[in-house]
Amino acid sequence: MQIATPYLMFLGDVPDRLAAKTAYGIADWRPEWCIGQIRMEGCAADLGIPDLSLAEAVEKGCRTMVVGVVNAGGTLPKHWVSGIVAALDAGLDVASGLHVRLGSIPEIAEAARANGRQLHDVRHSDETFATGKGTRRPGRRLLTVGTDCSAGKKYAALALERGMRERGFDADFRATGQTGVFISGRGVAIDAVVADFISGAVEWIAPAADPEHWDLIEGQGSLFHPSFAGVSLGLLHGAQPDAFVICHEPTRTTMRGVEHPLPSIADVIALTITCGRLTNPGIRPVGIAVNTQALDEAEARRLLDALGKEHDLPATDPVRFGVAGIVDRIAAEFPVKA
Amino acid sequence: MQIATPYLMFLGDVPDRLAAKTAYGIADWRPEWCIGQIRMEGCAADLGIPDLSLAEAVEKGCRTMVVGVVNAGGTLPKHWVSGIVAALDAGLDVASGLHVRLGSIPEIAEAARANGRQLHDVRHSDETFATGKGTRRPGRRLLTVGTDCSAGKKYAALALERGMRERGFDADFRATGQTGVFISGRGVAIDAVVADFISGAVEWIAPAADPEHWDLIEGQGSLFHPSFAGVSLGLLHGAQPDAFVICHEPTRTTMRGVEHPLPSIADVIALTITCGRLTNPGIRPVGIAVNTQALDEAEARRLLDALGKEHDLPATDPVRFGVAGIVDRIAAEFPVKA
Repeated sequence: MQIATPYLMFLGDVPDRLAAKTAYGIADWRPEWCIGQIRMEGCAADLGIPDLSLAEAVEKGCRTMVVGVVNAGGTLPKHWVSGIVAALDAGLDVASGLHVRLGSIPEIAEAARANGRQLHDVRHSDETFATGKGTRRPGRRLLTVGTDCSAGKKYAALALERGMRERGFDADFRATGQTGVFISGRGVAIDAVVADFISGAVEWIAPAADPEHWDLIEGQGSLFHPSFAGVSLGLLHGAQPDAFVICHEPTRTTMRGVEHPLPSIADVIALTITCGRLTNPGIRPVGIAVNTQALDEAEARRLLDALGKEHDLPATDPVRFGVAGIVDRIAAEFPVKA
Repeated sequence: MQIATPYLMFLGDVPDRLAAKTAYGIADWRPEWCIGQIRMEGCAADLGIPDLSLAEAVEKGCRTMVVGVVNAGGTLPKHWVSGIVAALDAGLDVASGLHVRLGSIPEIAEAARANGRQLHDVRHSDETFATGKGTRRPGRRLLTVGTDCSAGKKYAALALERGMRERGFDADFRATGQTGVFISGRGVAIDAVVADFISGAVEWIAPAADPEHWDLIEGQGSLFHPSFAGVSLGLLHGAQPDAFVICHEPTRTTMRGVEHPLPSIADVIALTITCGRLTNPGIRPVGIAVNTQALDEAEARRLLDALGKEHDLPATDPVRFGVAGIVDRIAAEFPVKA
């Protein structure tokens, strides 16, 4: 799916910032695409960008209204429907991260048809994929993997895109989750793909490229998460990464949503290499990305220093301390061929 | 999905035996459910059971007509539609293993509605699953795993069901593929489930049971297959098997549909244990099942003897030599608690 940019951000009347997490992620990473926001009475979220009417948004060049908000249950509240229909009538496409499909709501489907506009449901994939083949393809790839879900894998891949581009690398973030799809304007929510096509979908997301080009692929789940490890393994095989970065949240004691303890970073490195060799015999770790939000700066630096020494890898918090060390390691491990 | 038995087997006018592979599998393993067959002019398949009219099938108690055949492309040939409509009109449910959904064909959907009959598409799952939790549940479970796809995993699980029942075990085959679903009348084609729910679907397929009950779970793919390993890993985590049997086809040089070499049996054992420990720390191998069809009997016995010694496991061809050795091992490793 390819979503037309720039965006008008629809925030509805969500009761808090958390319900607009996706919208904040898009605004953080693609401020140049987020021309304005549209909010209903009572909305408690604010992206800090201009409030625009639909007419103003169209005039400023917006192409798609992004429903980057959730409400309890993932449904579309009835009182949002008229706003979405109005956007279609104004000539915008609409893209949603809700569980419910936009096209399943008759008024919205009809308005899209009548106005010749696109509806995008990033949680669903209508793309037909081939099964993965595991054949080596040109281009370089880095995958972010985790000790758990929600451990900063998207953030690390995006920070590496920014950091590598600043250093002159030809590098693109590749989205595998809904917020990532909005941020890249392209991609597939890999957890919504039919199981047989996980690795095939990733081969499509990160296709053959120039030999020196880097795809920075957003990881999902963890090989050690009992709910989602199948997705993580299909993603690893499809990505056939040359390099991977381990993402970790140090204060968690059990994995998200289940009772299992977190694996060690060493376990994640070992199993990622064991399994990743199937489609890329040269796979190797190039860094550790830690979310140190819960630690003060001195504690954070101590932890990163210890992890870096233990694993002989650059360890950083991408938000707090940037990714220069990991980019250095990538540059050293994968020299540009003359 | 729960398919009403017994079955009338619809063979259409398939050009060869291979196109009716699913039907033969059902007739082999559930002869008592296969009351008769219905064949069109030119049909080259024959299950060796009575040819019945629809009226005769209903009279003999058939509940479901099974379309256990494929044609090139997985579509439903137009000239089969009237036969399916006639079955619904006669009062039978219809279950299909085709890629196309029966209900997507208007005449069939209308006939099912008008007659109040069920349509089952075993390649599709409309069941809503929870994500897997990985919590230990009572009951014992065995999973068949493979060095490759199509290495005899369904056959081994079914042979163990038969062999263990003969020895007094309370044991049930649990289907995870389309032929298996027809054979058990229940289950889910796991490769058709949305990726996020692979392990959750398996937790549903093989639920909590009596402590001495054995679920014999049909494996899929291989942890080493670059197309399908994600499915295999989600299946392993959801099954949380106490025991596993490695299935192997010794004449293959590359994995099915791809260019990758087959993993060794030792590699499969090691990675299955490494990954399987996440949801069952006691996981262990209890046997090797080899498809020796391509070998003469002396060669087959030599190979099985060598494999058994190499891995210190009972090694057999379930078709040729039965599964007594594996059942012995299970009985020894998992004594019934007093």
